[in-house]
Amino acid sequence: MSTTDKELRIGMVGYAFMGAAHSQAWRTVNRVFDLPTRARMALICGRDTGKVADAADRLGWEAYTTDWRDLINRDDIDVIDVCTPGDSHAEIALAALAAGKHVLCEKPLANTVEEARAMTAAAEVARAAGVRSMCGFNYRRVPAVTMMRQLVADGRLGVIRHVRATYLQDWIVDPQFPLVWRLQKDRAGSGALGDIGAHIIDLTQFVTGQRISGVSAVTETFVRERPLPAESSGLAATVDGGTAPTGPVTVDDAAVFVARLDGGALATYEASRFATGRKNALRVEINGSLGSVVFDLERLNELEFYDATRPTAEQGFSRILVTEGEHPYMSAWWPPGHIIGYEHSFTHEMRDFIEAVATGVDPAPSFADALQVQLVLDAVARSAELGSSWTEVEPALTAATV
Amino acid sequence: MSTTDKELRIGMVGYAFMGAAHSQAWRTVNRVFDLPTRARMALICGRDTGKVADAADRLGWEAYTTDWRDLINRDDIDVIDVCTPGDSHAEIALAALAAGKHVLCEKPLANTVEEARAMTAAAEVARAAGVRSMCGFNYRRVPAVTMMRQLVADGRLGVIRHVRATYLQDWIVDPQFPLVWRLQKDRAGSGALGDIGAHIIDLTQFVTGQRISGVSAVTETFVRERPLPAESSGLAATVDGGTAPTGPVTVDDAAVFVARLDGGALATYEASRFATGRKNALRVEINGSLGSVVFDLERLNELEFYDATRPTAEQGFSRILVTEGEHPYMSAWWPPGHIIGYEHSFTHEMRDFIEAVATGVDPAPSFADALQVQLVLDAVARSAELGSSWTEVEPALTAATV
Amino acid sequence: MSTTDKELRIGMVGYAFMGAAHSQAWRTVNRVFDLPTRARMALICGRDTGKVADAADRLGWEAYTTDWRDLINRDDIDVIDVCTPGDSHAEIALAALAAGKHVLCEKPLANTVEEARAMTAAAEVARAAGVRSMCGFNYRRVPAVTMMRQLVADGRLGVIRHVRATYLQDWIVDPQFPLVWRLQKDRAGSGALGDIGAHIIDLTQFVTGQRISGVSAVTETFVRERPLPAESSGLAATVDGGTAPTGPVTVDDAAVFVARLDGGALATYEASRFATGRKNALRVEINGSLGSVVFDLERLNELEFYDATRPTAEQGFSRILVTEGEHPYMSAWWPPGHIIGYEHSFTHEMRDFIEAVATGVDPAPSFADALQVQLVLDAVARSAELGSSWTEVEPALTAATV
Amino acid sequence: MSTTDKELRIGMVGYAFMGAAHSQAWRTVNRVFDLPTRARMALICGRDTGKVADAADRLGWEAYTTDWRDLINRDDIDVIDVCTPGDSHAEIALAALAAGKHVLCEKPLANTVEEARAMTAAAEVARAAGVRSMCGFNYRRVPAVTMMRQLVADGRLGVIRHVRATYLQDWIVDPQFPLVWRLQKDRAGSGALGDIGAHIIDLTQFVTGQRISGVSAVTETFVRERPLPAESSGLAATVDGGTAPTGPVTVDDAAVFVARLDGGALATYEASRFATGRKNALRVEINGSLGSVVFDLERLNELEFYDATRPTAEQGFSRILVTEGEHPYMSAWWPPGHIIGYEHSFTHEMRDFIEAVATGVDPAPSFADALQVQLVLDAVARSAELGSSWTEVEPALTAATV
Repeated sequence: MSTTDKELRIGMVGYAFMGAAHSQAWRTVNRVFDLPTRARMALICGRDTGKVADAADRLGWEAYTTDWRDLINRDDIDVIDVCTPGDSHAEIALAALAAGKHVLCEKPLANTVEEARAMTAAAEVARAAGVRSMCGFNYRRVPAVTMMRQLVADGRLGVIRHVRATYLQDWIVDPQFPLVWRLQKDRAGSGALGDIGAHIIDLTQFVTGQRISGVSAVTETFVRERPLPAESSGLAATVDGGTAPTGPVTVDDAAVFVARLDGGALATYEASRFATGRKNALRVEINGSLGSVVFDLERLNELEFYDATRPTAEQGFSRILVTEGEHPYMSAWWPPGHIIGYEHSFTHEMRDFIEAVATGVDPAPSFADALQVQLVLDAVARSAELGSSWTEVEPALTAATV
Repeated sequence: MSTTDKELRIGMVGYAFMGAAHSQAWRTVNRVFDLPTRARMALICGRDTGKVADAADRLGWEAYTTDWRDLINRDDIDVIDVCTPGDSHAEIALAALAAGKHVLCEKPLANTVEEARAMTAAAEVARAAGVRSMCGFNYRRVPAVTMMRQLVADGRLGVIRHVRATYLQDWIVDPQFPLVWRLQKDRAGSGALGDIGAHIIDLTQFVTGQRISGVSAVTETFVRERPLPAESSGLAATVDGGTAPTGPVTVDDAAVFVARLDGGALATYEASRFATGRKNALRVEINGSLGSVVFDLERLNELEFYDATRPTAEQGFSRILVTEGEHPYMSAWWPPGHIIGYEHSFTHEMRDFIEAVATGVDPAPSFADALQVQLVLDAVARSAELGSSWTEVEPALTAATV
Repeated sequence: MSTTDKELRIGMVGYAFMGAAHSQAWRTVNRVFDLPTRARMALICGRDTGKVADAADRLGWEAYTTDWRDLINRDDIDVIDVCTPGDSHAEIALAALAAGKHVLCEKPLANTVEEARAMTAAAEVARAAGVRSMCGFNYRRVPAVTMMRQLVADGRLGVIRHVRATYLQDWIVDPQFPLVWRLQKDRAGSGALGDIGAHIIDLTQFVTGQRISGVSAVTETFVRERPLPAESSGLAATVDGGTAPTGPVTVDDAAVFVARLDGGALATYEASRFATGRKNALRVEINGSLGSVVFDLERLNELEFYDATRPTAEQGFSRILVTEGEHPYMSAWWPPGHIIGYEHSFTHEMRDFIEAVATGVDPAPSFADALQVQLVLDAVARSAELGSSWTEVEPALTAATV
Repeated sequence: MSTTDKELRIGMVGYAFMGAAHSQAWRTVNRVFDLPTRARMALICGRDTGKVADAADRLGWEAYTTDWRDLINRDDIDVIDVCTPGDSHAEIALAALAAGKHVLCEKPLANTVEEARAMTAAAEVARAAGVRSMCGFNYRRVPAVTMMRQLVADGRLGVIRHVRATYLQDWIVDPQFPLVWRLQKDRAGSGALGDIGAHIIDLTQFVTGQRISGVSAVTETFVRERPLPAESSGLAATVDGGTAPTGPVTVDDAAVFVARLDGGALATYEASRFATGRKNALRVEINGSLGSVVFDLERLNELEFYDATRPTAEQGFSRILVTEGEHPYMSAWWPPGHIIGYEHSFTHEMRDFIEAVATGVDPAPSFADALQVQLVLDAVARSAELGSSWTEVEPALTAATV
């Protein structure tokens, strides 16, 4: 491994929404957390020279390149941080792992199960050589989410009976919103399902410690033709007047499914970009025999916890402000009641990644964990294609046999 | 029709939870609303002499009987109000309609589609003779729910994209809670599905003006054997110590399903008695292309309304306190901000029923409407039995052809 | 005492907002609660023959009269229920007590301290003869409020440090809203202060078990001239076009004050009819060394309770749905989660009043308790007049010495 | 002015809570906002060599010193950022201004009115030489707060009738919490009043555009003797076992006051560190003749707005998620619904400060604005000392005459 003891030199591919969020996290992580190694924002990569140069300057990267292979070929880069659309994840990550670079790859891991299997297999091989890999399901690191997992793990919810998860947005309700890459199957793999549905699949499995075993799903594309974009970045985009040529939307606008978890719980999932008024409404409720928890990403500093072992007359959902030093990650931040934001989940992700690399343990979620999410996405898509028929989630183990 | 111009003489069957709620409504309706006819609490019926005598005295009925046929045979009873468990709805309602009595029947209309079809056919026949019939989906008359329907009907939500409905309770989470009639298929028809799932099916169809066309469902019975009850009433019951004999639970504890509405919306539904901490959580969210609404029965005086036609920077879910004189039913009650309760939905139901009878129009929901709900319940049950396969809701029209 | 064992014959003066609310409660109380005595709605009194006749018919009173002295002179009336504006409370109540009638008097007890003292003295005298008297601070009987008091009494909040109470309405924000009796000092005594401020004074003293010892106050009349009303009832009124003559507003639109409680707490109070958007926002928060509670009348079925003795990471305000059988008054109503409304507080008030009369104990709040509230109102008014100077609340004891 | 065109070299005094928050902001501001000048974290100052060296390394400052005069004497420092306790603000700021350095000074501006007047006078003098000064009332830059001000300025609330402001914390409820500097009058000037009360005074004046003209106040110190701290930082501290020596608390634990604003509004203010369960509960409600707004710092991404010009049946408090590109400061951050945290208010503060310096305009709040807040604090303290007597806020103009 080429890293020095003190420094972890980062090479990042992509500079849009995720690139900016990761940059903020790399820049902040060592300023807030006391870690054995310090991240160095060494090299950023993007295809457009002017834009990536600007991004490097603005976001604070020491250098830039337009060819992602440069990141992998350089000896003085320790980590490859993959922030591109899903269609290039596999190629970049496989090359990085082969070159002995630690890899942090944005979710979803890949656009297809096949790619995800290959990445997972490669990660397993690299792991033997001390190379770490991780998929960036950042919401696991929201303190309230981490706390939910602890409550479940501590038995505070008892036997889990219900999982209720939605991730609702509304940024494409307008039929004139343009056909950005997130609406194209070849770039994004799927629509709401893979983009935001993947988050609630991972989050609920992470919190409950259970896996989705089977699903029955319906997906829908409400608006099937959209104008081509003039310009786009993140979730924003513009169209050239009313004269723009149009193209077909090739992904789902919404995906809903019922599921069973392998611990016996019934679950409902919904991912949509057509939920008017819901901007980033990742909401999860879990009911167990002894208690329940509720989380809402738009109020990410809060966790509602119902403890059914309390006296009946005093039972109620407690709004816990997850800003105490006792709460996960929070001792590094501000006094109680001073809230953190969306970007902090990435700072926590980088914290855990750096610590894992520095101490030589495998970070989670692993590529194998992310492959399992991909298998759920695949089961959902297949069920929807087959008239909502019950579809078992394929076991990830098959990966090993390939 | 045997009613006088001024008086509507009510005969009610049942005196438990629903009987008490209906009594409160019959007693109150003419004291609050200005109506052409006055309800008279003439006769109450129950099987146990002592208990029904007590109920008559306590609830304020003029007389009582232990045989429901007495209500039907008497000339001086105008309305039969059926508040019994579902297994006797059909027999009583059919007899009442045949005798020319107006019928108000609690939901679900019946325990089977077959019974519901027969009742609907009988109601159609009686209708020709000026006999009115109505099924008691009382939540339609919660002012916020009526207002939701108006907003949709006025086009304020645009094209409906999503319906999200849950009805969650937790009164049988404890495995020692006894095997009351609501947990027995022969008495109740189904479990959470028919008891509370029926409410959200009716409510969302009422509000959207659309019908569920197909479903994919999963149901579950988490606790399959329970102690027999020593005593029970409403949702409360007791068991004789730890020595009580047990019996099998023959209904669902929870039912979840995805659905399509005939106007193009995707929907998710969940009914459960195992949602720890949720007492009476009927919650509905509807997203349209121009706006959204959210309703929560535990805060039934409030409606959240999102109007996407407002300036972007001012858009938000407005918490409307539905207590203004301008709101449905509310001019009869208290000044703005003085909230009403659960029971008021029944008072509004009786108001509308009395007015319909007095003015000679058909009240809604009709038995045909309730049959359609029954057909959805049936489709859900069949889908669950057939491994969640997509199941079309049978058209109610078949009833006419039988 | 003229009452029979089984029946308590009620004579009520007034038929507007309070009259309707009391009627609903008298009508309901014995249908829901199991009590030793049954209330009989015997006689209603109002000045306008046509209107009181209509009210008797609509609200369900057996007879009516236009002279309140009839209620007192009749032998077959046991209770006088005073629902008139404050300017006639003293005269009616004094006559009733002198005639040996039990008296239930709406709040505020009187328009002046002098009247309140006289009424309290008369109640003391009558009490020796077994005559009961009570002032109708109905919000004490909201289950969540009663529960707050129990939590404080049980020491669950520790030493009370802060009381924060507002009662906000907005029904006269419009300068064209007419000059109803509630805006006239000779009828109403004071404005927001006595009408709604009295409620939060009583409620917070009831809950904490402490008395306000001194205040520093500001009051304001934002709109000093208003059109005379064409018609008015409750909080609603109309004006005759733009040509209506006007008159001076002689009461406060808003009153704010800081206070000290005799147990050491600091408090803030605010009563206003100019809080745009707030319809009936009686909100109270109490902070103690061990916990806090929060109550909001617009969500009267909920109580927020913070228990600082719980583990730090789990502390939070619990939203308790006060609808369980274990909660005050609630076992008589519906299953958990089925909410009650504003009017139920009166039903509970009548329940406690009937029980007190039947069992021969003094109901609370007594006239002496209500006098103490009057003394606080008086201190507030005097402080406001004297440039917010600190003003001690006069002890009620002085009454005895007069 | 010694600054280059491109760089603003910052020297910061203090490295505890405020030092960390400011560092995060200086580090981030140019990475997120496109500004003409880039801040450079040049020099940090603290009294303890080891601690300030650690802080420089951790927070990312290029160099450190233990003497604040070094910052002022160096030619290559453009801005002095004062993050120390209030007792040293005046000395440092006066020296900095005299040396021609731009000054950003944490709130409250000073511990006494006298100091604040001197600082304001010095700022006026320096201003003539192009030296900028600003007081760090960071909450003005919470996007929802900025938006509130815009709504008021645009006339959307009409005539302001009520201001209701609380800032509640609970970090010293435990009598064993130690006597940190914030509880000592010589260091902190006052207690809850100056620390958090100053925030709500500034915020409400900023939002309404009105000044507090007079107050009637009560302050209280509930716990008058506390153990001396072994160690403390920010709002956290430890005590050496039960044997720690104690000292007197010389500041207020809580301050409550009623006030009048010069535009005619009535107001209530409360600042407390004894509000159990409230961690950082800065809450403000403003009622105007046309609308109302509500803000809660613990949910700082939300603004509730009530627009009374909407149709009655649709009026309600809208929960606006202040995360749209149209909202103040937010176009620089994440897509809608992705929330920001406490620290972002400082990033926005630095953004505005840098822009003001670069473009040669005076940033707000000026020292004169901060002096005015100091005068309100002074009036509150004087009123509390004089038995809550009404106390006019001294005009800031007097400063000029001195």
